[in-house]
Amino acid sequence: MTRDTTAAARPGRGDPLLLTPGPLTTSAGVKAAMTRDLGSRDAGFIALTRRLRTRLLALAGDPPGMTCVPLAGSGTFAVEAMIDTLVPRQGKLLVLANGAYGERMRRIATRLARECTAGSWPEHEPVQPARVDALLRDDPAVTHVAVVHCETTSGLLNPLPEIAEVVRRHDRRLLVDAMSAFGALPLDAGSLHLEALAASSNKCLQGVPGAAFCVVREQALEQAAGNASSLSLDLAEQWRAIENNGQWRFTPPVQVLLALDQALDELEAEGGPPARLARYADNCRTLVDGMRALGFETLLPAALQAPIIVTFLSPSDPAWGFAAFYEGLRRRGFAIYPGKLTEVDSFRIGCIGDLGRDEMLAVVEAVREVMAELGIKNPSAAADRSRALT
Amino acid sequence: MTRDTTAAARPGRGDPLLLTPGPLTTSAGVKAAMTRDLGSRDAGFIALTRRLRTRLLALAGDPPGMTCVPLAGSGTFAVEAMIDTLVPRQGKLLVLANGAYGERMRRIATRLARECTAGSWPEHEPVQPARVDALLRDDPAVTHVAVVHCETTSGLLNPLPEIAEVVRRHDRRLLVDAMSAFGALPLDAGSLHLEALAASSNKCLQGVPGAAFCVVREQALEQAAGNASSLSLDLAEQWRAIENNGQWRFTPPVQVLLALDQALDELEAEGGPPARLARYADNCRTLVDGMRALGFETLLPAALQAPIIVTFLSPSDPAWGFAAFYEGLRRRGFAIYPGKLTEVDSFRIGCIGDLGRDEMLAVVEAVREVMAELGIKNPSAAADRSRALT
Repeated sequence: MTRDTTAAARPGRGDPLLLTPGPLTTSAGVKAAMTRDLGSRDAGFIALTRRLRTRLLALAGDPPGMTCVPLAGSGTFAVEAMIDTLVPRQGKLLVLANGAYGERMRRIATRLARECTAGSWPEHEPVQPARVDALLRDDPAVTHVAVVHCETTSGLLNPLPEIAEVVRRHDRRLLVDAMSAFGALPLDAGSLHLEALAASSNKCLQGVPGAAFCVVREQALEQAAGNASSLSLDLAEQWRAIENNGQWRFTPPVQVLLALDQALDELEAEGGPPARLARYADNCRTLVDGMRALGFETLLPAALQAPIIVTFLSPSDPAWGFAAFYEGLRRRGFAIYPGKLTEVDSFRIGCIGDLGRDEMLAVVEAVREVMAELGIKNPSAAADRSRALT
Repeated sequence: MTRDTTAAARPGRGDPLLLTPGPLTTSAGVKAAMTRDLGSRDAGFIALTRRLRTRLLALAGDPPGMTCVPLAGSGTFAVEAMIDTLVPRQGKLLVLANGAYGERMRRIATRLARECTAGSWPEHEPVQPARVDALLRDDPAVTHVAVVHCETTSGLLNPLPEIAEVVRRHDRRLLVDAMSAFGALPLDAGSLHLEALAASSNKCLQGVPGAAFCVVREQALEQAAGNASSLSLDLAEQWRAIENNGQWRFTPPVQVLLALDQALDELEAEGGPPARLARYADNCRTLVDGMRALGFETLLPAALQAPIIVTFLSPSDPAWGFAAFYEGLRRRGFAIYPGKLTEVDSFRIGCIGDLGRDEMLAVVEAVREVMAELGIKNPSAAADRSRALT
């Protein structure tokens, strides 16, 4: 366990602690790892790329016949690269959407002129495998299925193993946006028979933002010629270039990758994904218990809640206002996240990053202080607004 | 002048000095600026984005009616975003190519299914405005023209003002890949009547790689609806989002942007682009004079050479080998760049980054030592290979 809790437990000094789903609070070691210059065609950087690809693939369960292709940019770039590279021009994508990130995949596919259909669920409900089964039975033209593992919109965990089983039974190919889950939540790309997953450097891996990657079936990359309409986001070309001489096609985000390498050292030192998940689960429990004791309500029941980010319903008290609440917490050294639900007023607090129980207790205490400051007596959501969800 | 020459003048200790066109050697201050966590929806980051956009626009000459749109990723991502966003589906792009980066724009446009034609010149010759004039006269379907300001392939400076004048006379729109020139070589986007330029955080601006940007005519962004086939690289949507609430659409590379802000402070402290250009020009002269004194030949005459990166012809001496030469310099603390010419064997040494005359003298001395080590007596290129260029 390499977390520097003494530093992290000092909110209010300098930059705030980030209770957000990325960028998030990184360790002192991850930040220090960036203070180097490395030539992108030098042996040291080529070795770094090789090491990162090997380690990320191992975190996906070392799936046979799959490879890791890194990419510069936001996580969304990797999601778009995955769809653009792997869904043929004549293919058809079924997007399973229960939040903003599922919707985003639909927008991406439409932009890329791929035929696209969607199965939609409310933001507080998981994707239902039985309905996926029916959708696939009814539409044999669908070649690929896309789903978000953990929907950061709500904090909901979709039942990936069950969805993967259905997709496999129908012999379609599954693309997973694993952005906010990869590195903490269990994911074995091989046994799930994934075609590909996309994730980024700065969620549960606890690096800094600026790099992303896909874990992809090599055969799919071999057959991808002519698919991608983008040169920058063509994963197959990126893969071939890196396999060929170890070098990226275009200038890589060197310092971000140095930070990721250090972050992977720290993940290993912490005990790997199971230990990280246990810490996040403890963070989540500490946060939810504390907030419930103050009177707040969560959007999701425990069974659907991933220990990544928690959506709380905004209080119905007329003294409530998100901006003032945010500022009160910010002054106390905590940055939280606005809500992203389309139908319910809410806010979010993240459980990931270089944070532990002390920080979660501290943020709950800060919430208590801010509520008093704002004169909010009843933090429960209005009955009619809660009812809108059921 | 904020360069820490004592640190930079200590080659051979730790990481090598990068004599490359980016990633390049950054200052200690730029590296230190990354050791922070900043929430991407927090007021501090929103202010950072605003400040960066204002400063980058100022470096483009504060062109009336233009704006700066930042983007995560490699510089090539910004070039692709510029073409994808600004060239309409029914438009036609004329690419003026005299090197790999011009050719890359042609590949990008073809991928993006834009009609594309090219005017090509040998890698050691500048784009000729008179031929551009003829190409535009002969092809009224061309709506946009794209050119590279400084071709990093060779180190050649294209005559941008003359090209811009021709494009303007024909009432077409000019897109400039200003990647390895922006921040040092003079460029006034307004008086050149550019439609857009693309550049990155880590060339003459001396930041780290991982962020790029375009300076674009606002009217072009307003009329861009329906152009981009990519969601990630849609500059118009990125612009609207940032104008709307100051926030990026997708997770920004926060630490890379903090480094860029510090790098812009240092550019200002150095005396702005004219002072930086003067230092690079001195670096270039020191390097070329030293290498010529050792017997090396440059690809380009001084009149065509930008003080960014210099292409040297590989010696015809049978003892020469780039790998051994590179390793010899690397052991002495210098990383140089392989050649990228298609027709002539060559290597490149960069003049940019946090380096001054002392470092250029040191690299020349290291070259002298390595030549002796390898037993190379005559570093001049073979007569027949030189002749291939004329």
